[in-house]
Amino acid sequence: MTAFVFRRQITVEYGHCDPTGVVFITRLFQYFDTSTWMMFEAATGVDRRDFPATVAIIPLVDVHAHCVQPVMFGDAIEIASRVSEFRRSSFHVEHRVTVGGALAVNGGETRVWAMRRKDDPERISAVAVPPEVIARFS
Amino acid sequence: MTAFVFRRQITVEYGHCDPTGVVFITRLFQYFDTSTWMMFEAATGVDRRDFPATVAIIPLVDVHAHCVQPVMFGDAIEIASRVSEFRRSSFHVEHRVTVGGALAVNGGETRVWAMRRKDDPERISAVAVPPEVIARFS
Amino acid sequence: MTAFVFRRQITVEYGHCDPTGVVFITRLFQYFDTSTWMMFEAATGVDRRDFPATVAIIPLVDVHAHCVQPVMFGDAIEIASRVSEFRRSSFHVEHRVTVGGALAVNGGETRVWAMRRKDDPERISAVAVPPEVIARFS
Amino acid sequence: MTAFVFRRQITVEYGHCDPTGVVFITRLFQYFDTSTWMMFEAATGVDRRDFPATVAIIPLVDVHAHCVQPVMFGDAIEIASRVSEFRRSSFHVEHRVTVGGALAVNGGETRVWAMRRKDDPERISAVAVPPEVIARFS
Repeated sequence: MTAFVFRRQITVEYGHCDPTGVVFITRLFQYFDTSTWMMFEAATGVDRRDFPATVAIIPLVDVHAHCVQPVMFGDAIEIASRVSEFRRSSFHVEHRVTVGGALAVNGGETRVWAMRRKDDPERISAVAVPPEVIARFS
Repeated sequence: MTAFVFRRQITVEYGHCDPTGVVFITRLFQYFDTSTWMMFEAATGVDRRDFPATVAIIPLVDVHAHCVQPVMFGDAIEIASRVSEFRRSSFHVEHRVTVGGALAVNGGETRVWAMRRKDDPERISAVAVPPEVIARFS
Repeated sequence: MTAFVFRRQITVEYGHCDPTGVVFITRLFQYFDTSTWMMFEAATGVDRRDFPATVAIIPLVDVHAHCVQPVMFGDAIEIASRVSEFRRSSFHVEHRVTVGGALAVNGGETRVWAMRRKDDPERISAVAVPPEVIARFS
Repeated sequence: MTAFVFRRQITVEYGHCDPTGVVFITRLFQYFDTSTWMMFEAATGVDRRDFPATVAIIPLVDVHAHCVQPVMFGDAIEIASRVSEFRRSSFHVEHRVTVGGALAVNGGETRVWAMRRKDDPERISAVAVPPEVIARFS
């Protein structure tokens, strides 16, 4: 578990909610994706638009979310995100969504750390996560 | 054209972009929808989650967007929104998206001003926009 | 594991893919959601638009997806869905996505079996899954 | 107005609808986008996944939709799409959504006809629509 925790507050928009007024669970993964990008930008100082070309492409290979209580239209939520583990060429992020301090959703993402291949830029290959990146999260 | 202009700044996220790295035009309408809700909350002081029950339901009936230049992943955009016209039981909103001050997208929405019917709460009917709401935008 | 397997074939659309041309993982959950609705319609014979009022509301409480290989723009995929377990007032669905017969993504959903409360139709409560529904899947 | 009309039938899914049970207008543009791709595939015989590399990239620059009546969860809709005009290096598509034969939504898209630049494959340039493509629609 790394020490760096990235937090942000957002409001659940009307257009993110299903016919019962509850947020679409697919939206949560979009919130998580954005939080992961913002966390890496905050930790490394690299603008996210330069990240794919200069640092790494970080495709998702595994995601999950577990709802403890419904998240509704207009709720002010906080998302706290943290890299729970760096492996050789992948990493796992944990996201906790709270409403008024109470846990609403637990989520997680596993992403590969990859770069474009020099011999074929249309393809990507997993590479080792650089120690200096890992150091930014401790 | 009303005097009240609602502005917000957002960053175009990775998950909002198509295979060429350009924002999905459908995402722009989600940005517009959120701006409209935030504008009404700012102008009326009514929390958007209470809006449908206490003020009005505002379904979209007409939308358009015209791209002047591409909006890309990571772009910091400003969306300026304004009610361009209140009609009897509908209104039109104009949205201007700028990147670094330069116009990127012109958009618009027409919405009906409606309430749940007392005799059949499953259905909605258009009603006149209250003068006190219109006054908030001048 | 129930015996009833629901299969459908779809093509991955341009608008479902990220800047690297790979399907957004959030889209997979939309595919899964649609497959679950179609599976229940096929198994029970109840039109999905009547399902919430006459049979049950089935909110998601847990989802996951694991990518074995990337799913790309234009891929013709098959989604095979099956209820892996009915519990008292919830159930779990497994979804397997294949491309050309090869496994690409494993996914799963847990949903509650709920109905609107008679004393407060704005709220829902979990109820037991009816045996006649379970019988349709065996 | 070209003679070729592309029609398809789809069902409006639960996950496409807002808290009032009406389809998100942004979803309509996703339906339209898919119809346009399928129409070009049907007219030209080129697999849509090969289209960007071998025929053209067709970015949207202008979209609109006008709702005549609400489209709801579970509605079986037909989308009829047609190129209403080919200009030098762009074209306009009209989409008509009907429910049970009655017009529900009118929509339109303007797209540029572009290719990757040989001197800079990261960028695209508008080029003339080939006469043999136009011929396929007449």
